[in-house]
Amino acid sequence: MFTGFRRILFGDPLPTASEEEQRLTKLKALAVFSSDALSSVAYATEEILLVLVMAGTAYLSLSVPVALAITTLAVIVAISYYQTVHGYPSGGGAYVVAEENLGKWPGLVAAAALLIGYVLTVSVSIAAGVEAVTSAIPALFPYRVELCLAATALIMWANLRGIKESGTVFAIPTYGFILILLALIAAGVFRVATGSLAPVSTEAAPQSGGAQPVMPFLLLRTFASGCAALTGIEAISNGVPAFKKPEARNAGITLIAMAVLLGIMFLGITFLASSLGIAPTGGETVVSQIGRHVFGSGPPYLFLQAATALILVLAANTSFVSFPRLSAILAQSRYLPNQLTSLGDRLVFNNGIFALALSSAVLIVIFGGDTHQLVPLYAVGVFLSFTLSQTGMVRHWCRKGQRGWQWKALINGVGAAATGLVTIIVLVANFLRGAWIVALLIPAFVWMFQAIKRYYSSVARQLSLEDLEPREWMDVSDCRSHKIVVPISGMHQGTLAALHFARSMSTDVTAVIVDVEPERTTRVREKWPVWGHGLPLVALESPYRSVIRPLLSYLKKVDQRDPERGLAVVVLPEFVPPHWWNHLFHNQTAILFKAILTYQRGKTGKGRVVINVPYHLERR
Amino acid sequence: MFTGFRRILFGDPLPTASEEEQRLTKLKALAVFSSDALSSVAYATEEILLVLVMAGTAYLSLSVPVALAITTLAVIVAISYYQTVHGYPSGGGAYVVAEENLGKWPGLVAAAALLIGYVLTVSVSIAAGVEAVTSAIPALFPYRVELCLAATALIMWANLRGIKESGTVFAIPTYGFILILLALIAAGVFRVATGSLAPVSTEAAPQSGGAQPVMPFLLLRTFASGCAALTGIEAISNGVPAFKKPEARNAGITLIAMAVLLGIMFLGITFLASSLGIAPTGGETVVSQIGRHVFGSGPPYLFLQAATALILVLAANTSFVSFPRLSAILAQSRYLPNQLTSLGDRLVFNNGIFALALSSAVLIVIFGGDTHQLVPLYAVGVFLSFTLSQTGMVRHWCRKGQRGWQWKALINGVGAAATGLVTIIVLVANFLRGAWIVALLIPAFVWMFQAIKRYYSSVARQLSLEDLEPREWMDVSDCRSHKIVVPISGMHQGTLAALHFARSMSTDVTAVIVDVEPERTTRVREKWPVWGHGLPLVALESPYRSVIRPLLSYLKKVDQRDPERGLAVVVLPEFVPPHWWNHLFHNQTAILFKAILTYQRGKTGKGRVVINVPYHLERR
Repeated sequence: MFTGFRRILFGDPLPTASEEEQRLTKLKALAVFSSDALSSVAYATEEILLVLVMAGTAYLSLSVPVALAITTLAVIVAISYYQTVHGYPSGGGAYVVAEENLGKWPGLVAAAALLIGYVLTVSVSIAAGVEAVTSAIPALFPYRVELCLAATALIMWANLRGIKESGTVFAIPTYGFILILLALIAAGVFRVATGSLAPVSTEAAPQSGGAQPVMPFLLLRTFASGCAALTGIEAISNGVPAFKKPEARNAGITLIAMAVLLGIMFLGITFLASSLGIAPTGGETVVSQIGRHVFGSGPPYLFLQAATALILVLAANTSFVSFPRLSAILAQSRYLPNQLTSLGDRLVFNNGIFALALSSAVLIVIFGGDTHQLVPLYAVGVFLSFTLSQTGMVRHWCRKGQRGWQWKALINGVGAAATGLVTIIVLVANFLRGAWIVALLIPAFVWMFQAIKRYYSSVARQLSLEDLEPREWMDVSDCRSHKIVVPISGMHQGTLAALHFARSMSTDVTAVIVDVEPERTTRVREKWPVWGHGLPLVALESPYRSVIRPLLSYLKKVDQRDPERGLAVVVLPEFVPPHWWNHLFHNQTAILFKAILTYQRGKTGKGRVVINVPYHLERR
Repeated sequence: MFTGFRRILFGDPLPTASEEEQRLTKLKALAVFSSDALSSVAYATEEILLVLVMAGTAYLSLSVPVALAITTLAVIVAISYYQTVHGYPSGGGAYVVAEENLGKWPGLVAAAALLIGYVLTVSVSIAAGVEAVTSAIPALFPYRVELCLAATALIMWANLRGIKESGTVFAIPTYGFILILLALIAAGVFRVATGSLAPVSTEAAPQSGGAQPVMPFLLLRTFASGCAALTGIEAISNGVPAFKKPEARNAGITLIAMAVLLGIMFLGITFLASSLGIAPTGGETVVSQIGRHVFGSGPPYLFLQAATALILVLAANTSFVSFPRLSAILAQSRYLPNQLTSLGDRLVFNNGIFALALSSAVLIVIFGGDTHQLVPLYAVGVFLSFTLSQTGMVRHWCRKGQRGWQWKALINGVGAAATGLVTIIVLVANFLRGAWIVALLIPAFVWMFQAIKRYYSSVARQLSLEDLEPREWMDVSDCRSHKIVVPISGMHQGTLAALHFARSMSTDVTAVIVDVEPERTTRVREKWPVWGHGLPLVALESPYRSVIRPLLSYLKKVDQRDPERGLAVVVLPEFVPPHWWNHLFHNQTAILFKAILTYQRGKTGKGRVVINVPYHLERR
């Protein structure tokens, strides 16, 4: 029915066997998996300056040392993850590593932190991308939320088409962003060094001479805000199986390339902002201010903004690759609903993609598409998962005892200690500004995982054949032994079809009519001798005009007769009108009745069988 | 399940036999049926002044002659309807009268006009009632729409409890309003006559000396706006059967009483507004201004506002009595969906009550609960139905030729001519201010009535037994001849129950599994020799991972084998989880599959029988 429309939107269905062909080259993988990490350059510096400027413009020069500390952290985390990629070529990231090495509970905590992090990545990236656009075109500022939602829908659509095409779609903007940003930094640093570029305002320029008292908590909050730069650095380790063979080696090389690019770009932008004395303003982003100052307002500046917006909006794509993958892994372990495991006909996990898009859209609406409000929620989950993952890796190397395991364990141990410390810093520094939400959500998710698992286990136990004796099930009674009840509302062709089928199933068939309209009952009685198949007809009284209650009490009576023959089987005549909305013109009592019947069960626990005999109406 | 809750809300169910006892005395009937007509006094004068004040405050004195003209019209209409009550003691009002005497089409036009009028009555009355409250308590002004919706819900609830209790609930406020308004008029007129009450502002006071040029269109628009005072005057003629016996006589007396009260109150308020030089303002109603001026701001004023608000909100009740009644009559003639004919267990037409409340709420939201925007839509439908009803009565008397039929026909003829002229006036005067909406909706409704009728006729023709030969239907084949297909997704107790039932129905049973997960298929194959009831098991390939498509094409093949044995019957195993939301944890493919099967039909036109075998899961 919708096949044609679906194909145009999502492409032809792909057979299961072609899964292998959908792998990514290193160049495409860098585009798909690094957009999140690299694009955070667009807002991380700004978050640092935002904290400093509140303490006073004189503190702005602290941004460079803070950025250096964060870059050092990035190097530690990247080296740690390089080892993860080689230790776990099958992917799964923090969840798999924590679960296998630390046990169920740390695994579930990591999974919760990751899922929440993915949702926030989409919201933050899209909000920041839209801010890049509104910096260049202030007239669009009032439509931020609408633009965010449109971008979310667009990325969802790209991902429903499948991962390989995503690689192609996203490579150009990612590389465009890398090139223009490196050009901006090169031009800016050269002109600052040669003295041909003056600061934006002398007032805000760094005062190298005047020593200022530095408050420790200010530094911690600045550091915590800047840590947003590291989000997304783990994406590659989750997605190793999406690389072409040899997966681990290719993924490792891509990870190093990404970390180097990230460091250069983050330090470069922070240095320029500091040198040019740029402070965050309400309407224009810091990168936009730098760009305008270095490039002027011509085509290079516009290209910078366009590339920033695109990579940010596309950064959300990292999550659209990882979230459905992790959901499917969790669902396979029965921690999430089963539907998340099924591949769509374009070989992507449709349900996970929908769930992610919906959650992110909700966050965007709640926080009005404002990056500064979303960022404080962001780092807690991300660094918690880093910590669990690195700790798991330490355990992994200790257990395996390969050659050089001590070095490997030490490297991951340093990573775990560093990220663990940062987790505490970002939680404390941002607690009141939103991190508490995440601190509540993570245990809530873990509880939900457990509840879902418990439900599925209970279902599996109840369905199990283990304690059953095959012989007693094989004992098939004669078909004519079913007690059949056919509720009718009049004597017409629809009724005839149902009676005919019931008659063919058993010799014990009773037709019943609820006497709500005496005239109708009389008409049925008159026609019964000719059309009643010789079956008994019972009219049920209904002083309160309810159709369902008299039927239910009649069924109860039939059930109690010869209970060893089981519950009475109900044969329901059903109209099938030519259009779905024609159902409005028919009483929907049958639907409610059927729902009630479905929930009824006999003393042995067996349910009541309901047989639908459709009668098709045409458009005439 | 919900029985206890329902009883508390709606009272005990009432048996059909007690319908007679629910009749109304004249006093209660006046409260139930006249609140609409009488309460229009609260806004009709204001609508007149609103038009005049736009032309200039000097024109305000024209309100008294215009009100006199409208009162004359009211007398004509009331006398006309007095005859209708006696000519049609069975009720049904304009629709029945027009349909019986003028034919199908005028009847349907009248019905459309009436239904639209009822919805508008609810919206306008509730909006005006809330305005009476916000006049006294300006702080509530921003919550107008919310208050309107709450009031709508309240009246809906009162009506779902049933008509007799409505009479009791509504008698006190109606009579309270009548008394306080008569007291206001008496006190006001006395003080104006004795010269002890000065006009509000000398500027807006009537300038008896200065002759002003009067524009004809201004007079027409003023008249058209004031005609809102007549809305509701027909309610009694629709509700004659709700009166105690003798119905027609009691209804006639009640009608006259209502018309006299309406005339006195409308003229009195208009006279006072004119004498006191009161002009409409944005925030306070005209009646509130008069009340404050005559009574001061003490308890009598507050009682006036409370009574006005209550009667207006209750006026909507007139429609909640009439709308479901008319809908049921139309539905009995198959012009509206069948569900509207069924009496709920409190002997009221639940579905009609819901439909009315919903439509009115939508109007309130669209027009922001503003009376002045709703009134221009109001009069067209009302006067159109008046005209059709009176014209029908002329025809009625001519046909019957009773004693004095000439006089009766003449009276109704005058009524028809007057209301017909007014219909044209209100349509033209308010066309651009909203009457066009009603002018479009009426033909749309008539088209809808026809389409529904056509649908039901087509269904009746298709269901008819007339051209059928009973013998060919009596020929029942052996139960074992059905071709049965059981789709399974695994080998468990739910599957067993379905196979067991299928096996008991026929010897030709095939189990099919779609091979989406090869491991699962292998597990089923392994268990089959023990648990398969000796039935054949077919595994269907599915390269694109769709479950439904391979099943459909397999069914097609089975259908084509021995086509004289009919379509294959599908037996579906179905989980019944302990809570409805547990369905989230199960694939819902079965529901979609079943919907598709229901729409399939064989070459002979017979539908496909689907058998549900439920398997109950417990909370363990």
